[in-house]
Amino acid sequence: MIGLGNLGTPVAENILQKNQRLFVYNRTASKAQPLVEKGAKMCKSIKELGQKCDVVFSVVSDDAALNDVTMGSNGLAQNLKAHGFHVSISTVLPATAKELAQVHKQFNNHYIAAPVMGRPEAARAGKLNFLVAGEKTAVEIVRPLLQQAGGAGIWEFGNEPSAANVAKLCTNFLIASAIESMAEGINLAAKSGLDAATWVSMITQTLFAAPVYINYSNILLKEMFRPAGFALKLGLKDINLVIRQSIEANAEMPFGKLMQQRLAECVEKGLGDLDWTAIALALN
Amino acid sequence: MIGLGNLGTPVAENILQKNQRLFVYNRTASKAQPLVEKGAKMCKSIKELGQKCDVVFSVVSDDAALNDVTMGSNGLAQNLKAHGFHVSISTVLPATAKELAQVHKQFNNHYIAAPVMGRPEAARAGKLNFLVAGEKTAVEIVRPLLQQAGGAGIWEFGNEPSAANVAKLCTNFLIASAIESMAEGINLAAKSGLDAATWVSMITQTLFAAPVYINYSNILLKEMFRPAGFALKLGLKDINLVIRQSIEANAEMPFGKLMQQRLAECVEKGLGDLDWTAIALALN
Repeated sequence: MIGLGNLGTPVAENILQKNQRLFVYNRTASKAQPLVEKGAKMCKSIKELGQKCDVVFSVVSDDAALNDVTMGSNGLAQNLKAHGFHVSISTVLPATAKELAQVHKQFNNHYIAAPVMGRPEAARAGKLNFLVAGEKTAVEIVRPLLQQAGGAGIWEFGNEPSAANVAKLCTNFLIASAIESMAEGINLAAKSGLDAATWVSMITQTLFAAPVYINYSNILLKEMFRPAGFALKLGLKDINLVIRQSIEANAEMPFGKLMQQRLAECVEKGLGDLDWTAIALALN
Repeated sequence: MIGLGNLGTPVAENILQKNQRLFVYNRTASKAQPLVEKGAKMCKSIKELGQKCDVVFSVVSDDAALNDVTMGSNGLAQNLKAHGFHVSISTVLPATAKELAQVHKQFNNHYIAAPVMGRPEAARAGKLNFLVAGEKTAVEIVRPLLQQAGGAGIWEFGNEPSAANVAKLCTNFLIASAIESMAEGINLAAKSGLDAATWVSMITQTLFAAPVYINYSNILLKEMFRPAGFALKLGLKDINLVIRQSIEANAEMPFGKLMQQRLAECVEKGLGDLDWTAIALALN
């Protein structure tokens, strides 16, 4: 496992709990310590990790970090065993997935895109959803590991890894839009003299009875913006990817562009480390 | 029952099926004919209807039509029996509800706001949700009638009728935003080479497993824009009310304003009579 952040750590814990041997690497080595105490073996480099593992999960913060981890003479592609598997959980551009899949292929190992839906608490509860794409045989081999990693749902998007990243970007855009529209609706309700909680209770029992609306409306009503389940600045990062992909694909996104502006304004206002529902704080 | 349009007709049919005596009035009298054949009694004027009924439902197209129906010497307020009930199902401004409630009070009868969620097929299936506000005793009296009219859910928002209209406007805004964001997501998925139906299937079984996303994504994927379950031009009318209310309440709505622009552009392009999901046709 490469990358032991907010999501990587509970995923690694899930794997350890299933009594799997787990080697870990993190740029900041101290973050690995709690996992080592639970039985993980620390590696000093990606090279060392690649030589010891058949399957490597990576969860890093962005495209640049994933490229760093994967490419070059010290990277995972060159140092992973032949016929090994790199399961990349990060939210990155489809183009990045495409490129990294090719690099792995050159070294006779496999890249599987498996971006994940679920906040850290979902990881701890084993309720993650993995969006998975890659060669069919490779996907079948890593599927049980994704389940052990906390995946309640494994959703397949075909042979081309980038397709899973497209699905992830579309989903994150949809979540962001749902948060923004809930925030605007709650603001309008409250300022119009309606008890917003009563309205939210009605919509989440009827037309909008879905986890996104139930969970995020609760955070919005209670203004539980700290600690961030998903930091606003990471939301901006993801929406930036969405907009890059929309330009690449020539797909118009009026809400997407507005969402990008709104999140960027929030980061400028210093709200970047709060939960991304804190976009509500930037509504008059 | 006043107003026998797309929604008024199935609501009237539901009431007839419960063996209730039903008097009907519609500006275009011919629209009442099918209901008369099913046992409804036609009235030639609102005055006549008001004198014969204890409870009158109205379902008309906009604030002006509701004012016409209610106000003046030929209107319902003046001609409804003392202690009678006007149950207004239309989506109108909170300010309109407030005003009409006062007028009814002057004539010793009651105004109950009961804007409804549900397309015509939901009305026929008895799966409507009524958002209800007004004097508590009046609401208790009309509650069984709302159930007979097809209300599976009766949601109460307190004593002030306008509160139900605020809730309805907030809800319609939320639905419109969900449609726009689904349309943008599906467009991005498809143009990025992902099978949009596979993506939609995943989101509607996980984070977005709610009627709005399930029903509207199906319409969007199959491009079933005719016949309109809810015409785009009516969507624009409702969003115009949302924006008027947001100005009134001093509540910022960036998505709301963009939604208004998008719908107005669609009407200009001649898409006004299609279902409001046809907003997808105006995405490059």
